[in-house]
Amino acid sequence: MSKLTPNPSYSVSMLIELPNTAGKLAAVINALAAEGGNLSHIDLIEQNRKFTVREITVNASSNEHVENLIVVVKDLPDIKLLQVQDRTFEIHKGGKIHIQSTLPLKGQDDLAMAYTPGVGRVCMAIADDKSKVFEFTIKSNTIAIVSDGSAVLGLGNIGPEAAMPVMEGKAMLFKEFAGLDAFPVCLATQNVDEIVETVKRISPVFGGVNLEDISAPRCFEIESRLQKELDIPVFHDDQHGTAIVVLAAMLNALKIVDKPIETVRIVVNGAGAAGVAVARLLKKAGATRILMCDSRGIICKDRSGLNAEKMEFACIETGNLADALRGADVFLGLSIGNIVSSEMVRSMADKRIVFAMANPIPEIQPELVADDVAVMATGRSDYANQINNVLAFPGVLRGALDARVQHITTDMHVEAAKAIAALVTADELAPDFIIPSVFDHRVAPAVSTAIKYIANQLGLSRV
Amino acid sequence: MSKLTPNPSYSVSMLIELPNTAGKLAAVINALAAEGGNLSHIDLIEQNRKFTVREITVNASSNEHVENLIVVVKDLPDIKLLQVQDRTFEIHKGGKIHIQSTLPLKGQDDLAMAYTPGVGRVCMAIADDKSKVFEFTIKSNTIAIVSDGSAVLGLGNIGPEAAMPVMEGKAMLFKEFAGLDAFPVCLATQNVDEIVETVKRISPVFGGVNLEDISAPRCFEIESRLQKELDIPVFHDDQHGTAIVVLAAMLNALKIVDKPIETVRIVVNGAGAAGVAVARLLKKAGATRILMCDSRGIICKDRSGLNAEKMEFACIETGNLADALRGADVFLGLSIGNIVSSEMVRSMADKRIVFAMANPIPEIQPELVADDVAVMATGRSDYANQINNVLAFPGVLRGALDARVQHITTDMHVEAAKAIAALVTADELAPDFIIPSVFDHRVAPAVSTAIKYIANQLGLSRV
Repeated sequence: MSKLTPNPSYSVSMLIELPNTAGKLAAVINALAAEGGNLSHIDLIEQNRKFTVREITVNASSNEHVENLIVVVKDLPDIKLLQVQDRTFEIHKGGKIHIQSTLPLKGQDDLAMAYTPGVGRVCMAIADDKSKVFEFTIKSNTIAIVSDGSAVLGLGNIGPEAAMPVMEGKAMLFKEFAGLDAFPVCLATQNVDEIVETVKRISPVFGGVNLEDISAPRCFEIESRLQKELDIPVFHDDQHGTAIVVLAAMLNALKIVDKPIETVRIVVNGAGAAGVAVARLLKKAGATRILMCDSRGIICKDRSGLNAEKMEFACIETGNLADALRGADVFLGLSIGNIVSSEMVRSMADKRIVFAMANPIPEIQPELVADDVAVMATGRSDYANQINNVLAFPGVLRGALDARVQHITTDMHVEAAKAIAALVTADELAPDFIIPSVFDHRVAPAVSTAIKYIANQLGLSRV
Repeated sequence: MSKLTPNPSYSVSMLIELPNTAGKLAAVINALAAEGGNLSHIDLIEQNRKFTVREITVNASSNEHVENLIVVVKDLPDIKLLQVQDRTFEIHKGGKIHIQSTLPLKGQDDLAMAYTPGVGRVCMAIADDKSKVFEFTIKSNTIAIVSDGSAVLGLGNIGPEAAMPVMEGKAMLFKEFAGLDAFPVCLATQNVDEIVETVKRISPVFGGVNLEDISAPRCFEIESRLQKELDIPVFHDDQHGTAIVVLAAMLNALKIVDKPIETVRIVVNGAGAAGVAVARLLKKAGATRILMCDSRGIICKDRSGLNAEKMEFACIETGNLADALRGADVFLGLSIGNIVSSEMVRSMADKRIVFAMANPIPEIQPELVADDVAVMATGRSDYANQINNVLAFPGVLRGALDARVQHITTDMHVEAAKAIAALVTADELAPDFIIPSVFDHRVAPAVSTAIKYIANQLGLSRV
């Protein structure tokens, strides 16, 4: 039941030579479809009277599935499999971002103005007035994406090198959605003091810092210390990006079930960076009945060895996740796949809301409770209501840099969530449409405008 | 005598409205020329029967000169100065480099392969085999340009923010000449230990490190410690870039005067990063009679308080620079402007070679000794034989990254110099042509090929 549907992340291109006679291509397609492959493009590469060369792109659901698809094609009579390319790995070859100059250096004049001797005058202007670094360098548009590789996606502590492809991808998202220049800073240390020190030392280049994939509870200390010690905004996306988008979706989901945030019983499962931040932001937005669970069940005050963040949400109730869910209005899963049963969902209050956001396998597959929930959301793109941080972080940082705020406050988080929620109109709002699409290009500008607006209102803008 | 010639680094664009009658434009041009301005483009912006709007670009020699040019235009009758723009500052607005994605993220498929969930497979491939970071991330093409802003150009200790425009310019040069992606790392610390630590911690992202504008003697320790502790190449351009280009020019200059490097008496004036590195590389290339001077004259073994680098070249001779130059075959100035007189040059041996490389004012103006030297070179683009690091560093790092060497050795420096020198053919070689132009696009590939060749020869290549 937890098998992924075939998707482009496991897509391969097969270069195939087949006899140029009727029915041969159909045989390949049938074989791939019978094995569960999802066909994408079919390109004609070469054709003569004897044979045809085609490139067939097929989506699979796992590495094993890819292997099986290759085998079925190889087993077909008269057909030669010339080459197999993993499309995902192809895209990542040589990295996914590059440095581009704003102007070419084709002659002496270019060089004399962009570099020596002309650049010296610009340097001195900044030396005389340090604030000019925002005007005459990349600083005002540049973000450091800082990770120590300690909690990358759901992959765990895989280190700074292995974290790189994610941070480069993040940089692409910053560019695509907010025009920001972001650069990966993957650190060869997982020591909190050293991370804080290092980010402070490289900060002159950057207008903001996005912390990424740093394990809890270290991430909380790193973020708060950097916020205190730096004069540029610091945003831990795994916490606040998630929290903003969850709150946005929740505000709209609550409209559908017509329940006020102040009275609903909310179970947050997962007390890592995201879970804690989501709970905090819901509280800020008015929620009063939040029950937080971790792998040991409800986080109860009696438990020993609780870290400060878990203590903040510890309650007097006890029990496991099933106990917590009984009678709850909202389930927010920020944990691991397949840990919620349909019985547990049916034990919740009427008009229940379930956000099963574990990736790639949700806490419960939506199909299993389709008729049992009022609103369902996941972290996945192949179901309705995808909760995806990309709805938040590009616009948040864009707004923060444009307003040149020192801190991105929780007031700003709430405003950002409201701005995202507001993009779904009353007419559009429906159980399967509570949050805009990741590719809705109105989102980042709406978020950045909200950030700039509230920054001005609160006197936090520095431009 | 030390005034700069008008050049684009002090160029301004003036937007001027003038009556549409004969002679008015000529009046503006005459006025600017009379004040010593060097006219560049004249563009027609708008024209009707009554008036003309033109943009006139004029090069000046200093900020004061710019002010004077503005005054003479303002003083002309019937002419309105609508706007004045400093072209150099215009170019630097918002910074000079940006991040570019290798592919757009237009739909779900792009996102699923470049980012989650597909990226997870690439991360795991690197986690399983760390060397794959070179294949699937930006590392193999990416350079950190590291500076603490302690010795920026000739401007002194102006700090990391003010150093940014130079480092961005350097990144442009890496891109333009070698296709390398370089990113500025301007550090908010000038402590040697902290700089070393910080560079080590951010090193997972980079394939190489270019140290830049770090004051001597700290730069020597920082470089050698990083070389020991990192497994990617570290290149201090102010030392080795300069040394390579000086050696290249010197090899060709010595051909013209027909003197062997082993026997010539060479005076190196300036015992900073560049001076020391030049002296060391000349020694490596065979020079035996090197006399090093600093602001106190010949560096003599008797002097107290010499740092290790100066001690390395300390000799038994004593005296000032004039004493050193008497009978010398070669003068290499890596110091400050106007400290060599024509008498001092004439006191040198016959067929003397003078490289006066202080910037922007050379140790001696070439005009003053035009008839007294066999070969003259400077650091400036407006004289023949410009000694410019850009001839070396792009190709050196390109070659080092392509060969994936751990260290850039002095053998590689010598080969790079020979490769640059060899681009001037025997037919072309002349007193006013000992070194290729900065814009000769054969240079970087020749240098990188030389680096790769010698790396292979010495078994230092890791690909």
